[in-house]
Amino acid sequence: MSLSTPFTDLVSIEHPIALAPMGGSAGGALAAAVSDGGGLGLVGGGRGDRGWLERELAIVRARTGKPWGVGFLTWAIDIDTMMWALGQHPHAVMLSFGDPGPFAARVRAADVPLIIQVTDLEEAQRAVDVGADLIVAQGSEAGGHGGRRATLPFVPIVVDLAAPTPVLAAGGIADGRGLAAVLALGAAGALIGTRFQASHEAIVPAQVSKAIISGHGADTERTRVLDIARGSGWPAKYTARVLRNAYVDRWRDREEELADDHEALRAYNRAVDDIDTDAISIWCSDAIDLINEVDSATDLVRQLASDASAALARVAGSARTTGC
Amino acid sequence: MSLSTPFTDLVSIEHPIALAPMGGSAGGALAAAVSDGGGLGLVGGGRGDRGWLERELAIVRARTGKPWGVGFLTWAIDIDTMMWALGQHPHAVMLSFGDPGPFAARVRAADVPLIIQVTDLEEAQRAVDVGADLIVAQGSEAGGHGGRRATLPFVPIVVDLAAPTPVLAAGGIADGRGLAAVLALGAAGALIGTRFQASHEAIVPAQVSKAIISGHGADTERTRVLDIARGSGWPAKYTARVLRNAYVDRWRDREEELADDHEALRAYNRAVDDIDTDAISIWCSDAIDLINEVDSATDLVRQLASDASAALARVAGSARTTGC
Repeated sequence: MSLSTPFTDLVSIEHPIALAPMGGSAGGALAAAVSDGGGLGLVGGGRGDRGWLERELAIVRARTGKPWGVGFLTWAIDIDTMMWALGQHPHAVMLSFGDPGPFAARVRAADVPLIIQVTDLEEAQRAVDVGADLIVAQGSEAGGHGGRRATLPFVPIVVDLAAPTPVLAAGGIADGRGLAAVLALGAAGALIGTRFQASHEAIVPAQVSKAIISGHGADTERTRVLDIARGSGWPAKYTARVLRNAYVDRWRDREEELADDHEALRAYNRAVDDIDTDAISIWCSDAIDLINEVDSATDLVRQLASDASAALARVAGSARTTGC
Repeated sequence: MSLSTPFTDLVSIEHPIALAPMGGSAGGALAAAVSDGGGLGLVGGGRGDRGWLERELAIVRARTGKPWGVGFLTWAIDIDTMMWALGQHPHAVMLSFGDPGPFAARVRAADVPLIIQVTDLEEAQRAVDVGADLIVAQGSEAGGHGGRRATLPFVPIVVDLAAPTPVLAAGGIADGRGLAAVLALGAAGALIGTRFQASHEAIVPAQVSKAIISGHGADTERTRVLDIARGSGWPAKYTARVLRNAYVDRWRDREEELADDHEALRAYNRAVDDIDTDAISIWCSDAIDLINEVDSATDLVRQLASDASAALARVAGSARTTGC
């Protein structure tokens, strides 16, 4: 059984599952594996590093014949990079975090489905206004960068605002039950990140997948500390959910002081070189308690879809007709 | 159609919906109205004010022949009050916020179903250990007091931990889609508060129901400011989600200073007397965007159940059998 939705129809895929285009870790291999499983693999184009993109888009094109796409950080990319990517014939382009205005018309003119991720109602309205084909309503449970609304209430509110534009849910979805739940909320599918970080195809150090597998959502928090430590330039509006560690504990609520502490910033850079999980950003979802092993991303897509169908069948099986 | 779950079986009700036992506002009339609609009405026994309880339990007993219950703040009640309430023949007793240990055995000895609300995994394990018949996993989207985990990831994690004990979801559920979603997550139903605050039967000033109806989740936050202002004695672990107002803005991150500012505390008391919504606690859910009118609680229960069934039927209708 597969779950057909306006999202699966829009991009001609089997299962209503999209890979979150996680900068750096969602490369061509992971995107291709997700697409091969019947989902939509999205390469994490991030800020638009051309060398990285050329390599990873070549990989995704070589490895899958199924639809795939590419996602960018709206606040950081430039039009030229996006136009180059459009020339690689993606089946969707996703824009996240920042004003999509300067980019939206170009994507639509290329006749490529435009996906816009939003974190509050103002961004959702803006996505509708610029003509998004699909909106991702991302809740604050998400790993990595995002906003303040929680997925469960935020998704139906965006569904109502955006209708008839279809909406994907993101943030806190790591198993088939979560996918089933957001479909019941009215979403046309789920965009999933952290669950795919713990896959064979993600570009992540072993220390990071190990930390995700053994971690707990209660040990995550949203913070700007590590963005400041790495001099990332992220807009202050978007905090990142990370696994709490000694570096975060040390600099919490002292972000301005950190920005001026050159020794602390150098220490962070050394930690990155050493892949020291006591300091570096391990972006992950509030739902990591549900992630217990590293799997093949292709298998994961199929398992998520099959478990979602089973969860829905279980609930439907409990429905009984009564006299009232 | 009704949705049968281990919760509806446990307390012999029609719909998997429980009224959150909101102190002060969930009186006998509201609990009876919810029970009459086919849900489980729970009177908000709060700290156990005996005069209030005697009146409200008399009302619920007089007004409904259906199962009803009573909920208490575990950190604030005493055994005598709870034993007196058990003598009123409730069909369930719910304990929230604090160690249920001293109370659990007494409830079970009375052969009354014991419901324990939890906000983190340690509390969930404790609820299992003391023999809860039903566990409420409450997410931080909830209006009023609670913890830090978000409902969407927290519920399935508690379901796995507590199995085979059934779990209700709470926090951020304000319409039938939300109920359908938490059933898909594996919950046996939903415990709903704020949606029932905006009902004819809730004991709330008109200003409060008006604020809920016109408010937005983005204008809510979790805070201790108003608990300190009203000298409530709440354990610091549990913040409360309230509608942001001028008083919260003024004292945010200055809680210790507020506790010593007698003029500010007097000003809060005056605001309570005047029902001044620029200062008083208006506890409400992150999902209030979904609440747009004041309804009869009996009708609300039926509407929530019917909309949940429709949401599940909609998703099931999109499932199609494929060759794979």
